[in-house]
Amino acid sequence: MNDTTDTPASVTVTVIGLGLMGRALAGAFLKAGHPTTVWNRTTSRADQLVADGARLAPTVGDALTAGSVVVLCVTDYQVVHTLLGAHDVDLDAATVVNLTSGSSAQARDTARWVERHGAHYLDGAIMAIPPAIGTAEAVILLSGPQAESEAHRSALDALGTVAYLGADPGLASLYDVAGLAMMWSVLNAWLQGTAMLRTAGVDAATYAPFAQQIATVVATWLPGYAEQIDSGVFPATVSALETDARAMTHLIEESEAVGVNTALPTLIKTMADRSIAAGHGGEQYPVLIEEFRKPRND
Amino acid sequence: MNDTTDTPASVTVTVIGLGLMGRALAGAFLKAGHPTTVWNRTTSRADQLVADGARLAPTVGDALTAGSVVVLCVTDYQVVHTLLGAHDVDLDAATVVNLTSGSSAQARDTARWVERHGAHYLDGAIMAIPPAIGTAEAVILLSGPQAESEAHRSALDALGTVAYLGADPGLASLYDVAGLAMMWSVLNAWLQGTAMLRTAGVDAATYAPFAQQIATVVATWLPGYAEQIDSGVFPATVSALETDARAMTHLIEESEAVGVNTALPTLIKTMADRSIAAGHGGEQYPVLIEEFRKPRND
Repeated sequence: MNDTTDTPASVTVTVIGLGLMGRALAGAFLKAGHPTTVWNRTTSRADQLVADGARLAPTVGDALTAGSVVVLCVTDYQVVHTLLGAHDVDLDAATVVNLTSGSSAQARDTARWVERHGAHYLDGAIMAIPPAIGTAEAVILLSGPQAESEAHRSALDALGTVAYLGADPGLASLYDVAGLAMMWSVLNAWLQGTAMLRTAGVDAATYAPFAQQIATVVATWLPGYAEQIDSGVFPATVSALETDARAMTHLIEESEAVGVNTALPTLIKTMADRSIAAGHGGEQYPVLIEEFRKPRND
Repeated sequence: MNDTTDTPASVTVTVIGLGLMGRALAGAFLKAGHPTTVWNRTTSRADQLVADGARLAPTVGDALTAGSVVVLCVTDYQVVHTLLGAHDVDLDAATVVNLTSGSSAQARDTARWVERHGAHYLDGAIMAIPPAIGTAEAVILLSGPQAESEAHRSALDALGTVAYLGADPGLASLYDVAGLAMMWSVLNAWLQGTAMLRTAGVDAATYAPFAQQIATVVATWLPGYAEQIDSGVFPATVSALETDARAMTHLIEESEAVGVNTALPTLIKTMADRSIAAGHGGEQYPVLIEEFRKPRND
């Protein structure tokens, strides 16, 4: 399906979807010396890439057959299916690397569809902003057949730090949203604290290094706490949940007293209270996993 | 009020309240060579400390006058006021270092009370578990008159890493609960991700280092984001809030699809949606500070 040889130095790649992120991906492939074909519904988005050496495919069908690695980075899975489904192309031997945001179920469905059409499928998620693409800072989550991941690693390494997660193509999406939940949670907790400290005249810049340090230290506890979850026993070696709950009350009361939003403090205490109500007040914080695993029923 | 000289090497200290934490504090003072007087309602709690060289005060009044630094570590401010108020002692020249958990308003009130009684007041919060006391890992937040903080720093350094926050005695409590909000938020986000990944057969130990890395990286963004808050302008240099909101929808839908709790994802989106509704969809995440600053009104 292509006439170049896959070597670490040069792999033919295609990038379909030239939004801000797609353009950054194609640019990183070009910079790493990979012959790169691009396609976008609005062709003008390819202008700079073509000036930098990319080949603009005349049709999406052409684009799909031009690379041994075909990277999709489009709006959503609806677009993925429209692009793939509308073109009766021979995907044989190609590897579709889908970096489009979606759910784990969509990733698994698409993997089955692509594999039925004779190609290989890797699902990915990009944990980076476009300007970081091509640097080690950009983390590319990848899931699907390990052999495919290894075969195309040299090309994908051009994009950033590739993290292979496992054979289940749904893993990249799951890790992606889980990571985003962490991102927003750190930001929200920081905003909560910033809002509270502001009432005492402390500016955001003064508080930020403190919040940074707390987040960084607490993050180091996670591997140890994970052992409690995997073993299913939660001895209160650090603190019992009912002790934490008293401090949560302080957080809510202080938020109310200084007149800032109490939604986040209330959520924190609600989750703990449920676990305490279920009889876990004497156990350690990670026992809350049992509440997080339950569908919300209120 | 005491017959020893304050030198960096040896300062007379008193610790009132010998729960797990109070005992750890007294133990650290003893280890650092400071003559230490202790008091607790239940005197048996002092047995090991006395064996290690502490002096058990016969009354709380005696304890309050025995140290040039009087550390309080009791259940709550009710107990603080009972102990201080019930004893018509001359606190002149002593410095009360109150490490009892409470609100910023309680700390400011207590500071006024103690200062009216001729003593100095520092309010503190301990960000550590008892076994960490006496190591650099234990962070002791301190607020109140800077001169007092500096005068007693050599003694307090025995407890851990002392972080002086400012003259407002309410600051230690505010930083404390703000830090706890960060702690619980990192833990909750990790539990959310752990619950989601578990549905794909990924164990907690496998996911934890990933969550740790995300939290650590996002924490490094806070000082930069703080500049946006302090300047009051939120250009979307990384991502616009409305783009984030689409990914939040993915997080909620994925949580629903795999059957885990959606309370945290929903809170994240609710806060963002409010900010978007207020016209900030094209700005960057820290613009949410405006929502966090508002009392919850729903």
